[in-house]
Amino acid sequence: MPQGTLLYAQSGGVTAVINATAAAVLQAARKRKVRVLAAHNGILGALREDLIDTSMLTAAEVAGLAQTPGGAFGSCRLKLKSLEQDRAKYERLLEVFRAHDVRWFLYNGGNDSADTALKVSRLAEEFGYPLTCVGVPKTIDNDLAVTDCCPGFGSAAKYTAVSLRECALDVAAMAETSTKVFIYEAMGRHAGWLAAAAGLAGAGRDAAPHLILFPEKPFDEADFLARVAATVKRVGHCVVVASEGIRDHKGRFVADVEGLSDAFGHVQLGGVGSYLAARVAHVLGLKVHWAMPDYLQRSARHLASQTDLEQAMAVGHAAVECALAGQNALMPIIVRDSDSPYRWHIDIAPLAQIANREKKMPKAFIRADGYGITAAARRYLTPLIAGEACPPYTADGLPAYTTPQMRLIKRRLPRMPAGD
Amino acid sequence: MPQGTLLYAQSGGVTAVINATAAAVLQAARKRKVRVLAAHNGILGALREDLIDTSMLTAAEVAGLAQTPGGAFGSCRLKLKSLEQDRAKYERLLEVFRAHDVRWFLYNGGNDSADTALKVSRLAEEFGYPLTCVGVPKTIDNDLAVTDCCPGFGSAAKYTAVSLRECALDVAAMAETSTKVFIYEAMGRHAGWLAAAAGLAGAGRDAAPHLILFPEKPFDEADFLARVAATVKRVGHCVVVASEGIRDHKGRFVADVEGLSDAFGHVQLGGVGSYLAARVAHVLGLKVHWAMPDYLQRSARHLASQTDLEQAMAVGHAAVECALAGQNALMPIIVRDSDSPYRWHIDIAPLAQIANREKKMPKAFIRADGYGITAAARRYLTPLIAGEACPPYTADGLPAYTTPQMRLIKRRLPRMPAGD
Repeated sequence: MPQGTLLYAQSGGVTAVINATAAAVLQAARKRKVRVLAAHNGILGALREDLIDTSMLTAAEVAGLAQTPGGAFGSCRLKLKSLEQDRAKYERLLEVFRAHDVRWFLYNGGNDSADTALKVSRLAEEFGYPLTCVGVPKTIDNDLAVTDCCPGFGSAAKYTAVSLRECALDVAAMAETSTKVFIYEAMGRHAGWLAAAAGLAGAGRDAAPHLILFPEKPFDEADFLARVAATVKRVGHCVVVASEGIRDHKGRFVADVEGLSDAFGHVQLGGVGSYLAARVAHVLGLKVHWAMPDYLQRSARHLASQTDLEQAMAVGHAAVECALAGQNALMPIIVRDSDSPYRWHIDIAPLAQIANREKKMPKAFIRADGYGITAAARRYLTPLIAGEACPPYTADGLPAYTTPQMRLIKRRLPRMPAGD
Repeated sequence: MPQGTLLYAQSGGVTAVINATAAAVLQAARKRKVRVLAAHNGILGALREDLIDTSMLTAAEVAGLAQTPGGAFGSCRLKLKSLEQDRAKYERLLEVFRAHDVRWFLYNGGNDSADTALKVSRLAEEFGYPLTCVGVPKTIDNDLAVTDCCPGFGSAAKYTAVSLRECALDVAAMAETSTKVFIYEAMGRHAGWLAAAAGLAGAGRDAAPHLILFPEKPFDEADFLARVAATVKRVGHCVVVASEGIRDHKGRFVADVEGLSDAFGHVQLGGVGSYLAARVAHVLGLKVHWAMPDYLQRSARHLASQTDLEQAMAVGHAAVECALAGQNALMPIIVRDSDSPYRWHIDIAPLAQIANREKKMPKAFIRADGYGITAAARRYLTPLIAGEACPPYTADGLPAYTTPQMRLIKRRLPRMPAGD
């Protein structure tokens, strides 16, 4: 039985399957008889010594987590700065680790988290503290480098494609006397992966979505409106998918012009659909509706992809094996062996190759006219949304999600100094 | 074999299961060897003589329709006025009916459609034309009189409750360092049925949704904001469900203040979430996100309720039996026999009791403080979202929806005079 404690933390925006990764981590660690603590609300819990003893979870509860969206242990948005700038915080982390004999640290998140895990591992080395840091990939944005895809993305992509297909049927039935233009706003700050996934809802020039707006392509309003008008003339209606992160030729977010953004004193994305809808109504005089599923798209566990679920569990399992083998500063990644039939396997990659990088969509995935996806994109995306991983439902018609009460263990250190 | 043709038309906003009603109509009529024409785009198709011969659909295609959202034959928003004001149109309908030997007219819609069906039946009587008009209930708004519930509502309600439960788990996991307030905008112009359904997502004071805004209760902004602040203080975050149709004390739509509404020169609902989010951010200074699923909530066949599906098919079947028995100016309705175990049966009611009426939520369904649902509401709503009626999926991970190409039959009349 390996000596020491494994600390697991969730980071950044949660997904439909990040708890499946957590479940796999717990299952793999239990098989190896390793004690697992989970940080409450991500790295913040590690800093505050807010730790959860996962041994209180029954095997059934752990299995239930794999079918539950959200972040069971809480997540956080907190990016630690450089080792120099945030040295006190990094040292505090090591203090907490030492107090609880944490020998393995698994950080489940995106590229920021990979960066944090990497820095913690470097500091531990500097201090001669024996620690193995392993990143575990997760993000609906699908923008992690090296890995072929990211756990969480496939389910959000499936949600997007299915929802688009459904509402497109609605619009088509009503367009004659009602809504002519429908705009679906997809998440995606810098990369249009989810918007691209909407393209799976239909194929061919006249199938919805008729126009996709990618953040990778500068938004040209006049050209966009002309294409909407032409589509309505040709098809009778027009279904548009807009990435929240589209920018104009000067690189400014289109959503910036929307009133809500200003209310925060900083750029809050979401609302580009509202802006586009107003322009379509004003300039083209067409009846328009728009939808913004926001968090629904990243928490729709009821519509999770089986591929995504399997990969989310596989990286969790591999991360534990990797950590216990003392393989430091690495991240399990997904390698694609073939598109059709879809085959993949888990490999490991250095965190240094992943931290702080952002993978954009390949140019070859965006159609020449800039408003749709290519056959290459379909080949890449299709297997990621394949298979239905439905959760069980209660007799009351709701998914039987598992939300055990988590209790924090007794602290062994003084509280973190104020201001940190 | 009954002589003559049955004409079926879909009307108003489509639902996840209106095509299931259509499938049941076709199946019941085929069993009785009755020819069925379907109007293309609702009553508009009947006026234009745009008719579809449904005999071209294979049995497998008809069965597939029962698993497909949208409106397979097209729907429309066109309210005929009184017999006096729109007499030419009503007479044109009878002309088209006569030209195609239409003896039974099934109009699948809400209270406006019940009104149209009733008027057509009166005019036919006046002209001595043998016609049986039967309304078939459908609306996600659940606002039809007499019937206990409306086909289409249960599935939209299930979508609402499940989505709310999922995104609430997301918000709870992130609230410490990210979004504190989440606002979900539900459809419902005059009645808060769907907003109420969101209440099924949780029970107890601290479970999401923490606050529901009903159109039945005048919106008091100061009171609302104070409750949001108190909930965030107590729970750590606050999940709000807002009916698109909430109004202030003077009866003005809250969504009216939103920019988009003005763009149309008339009130376009949707966007109340944006307004509330801006107020929460401005006044309380809390980070807020909001979602507006719009058409997604009424087309989510992937999340249809089994109860709803069965009722949608039952009213379709009953409507055919009713029509062929010559029972004129009626509508099949759903009668509840017991809440738990849930038992129901189909009865018929006069269209005159349904046309142009609107059923609001009983006062006893809204909690005394006005921001939640009561136990009585739960008893009523729970069985309507029970059971999962998942569609089949293709290997590509998308629902296998059936969208046969519909062809119009040859016209027998001159075109409708212009201007109509």
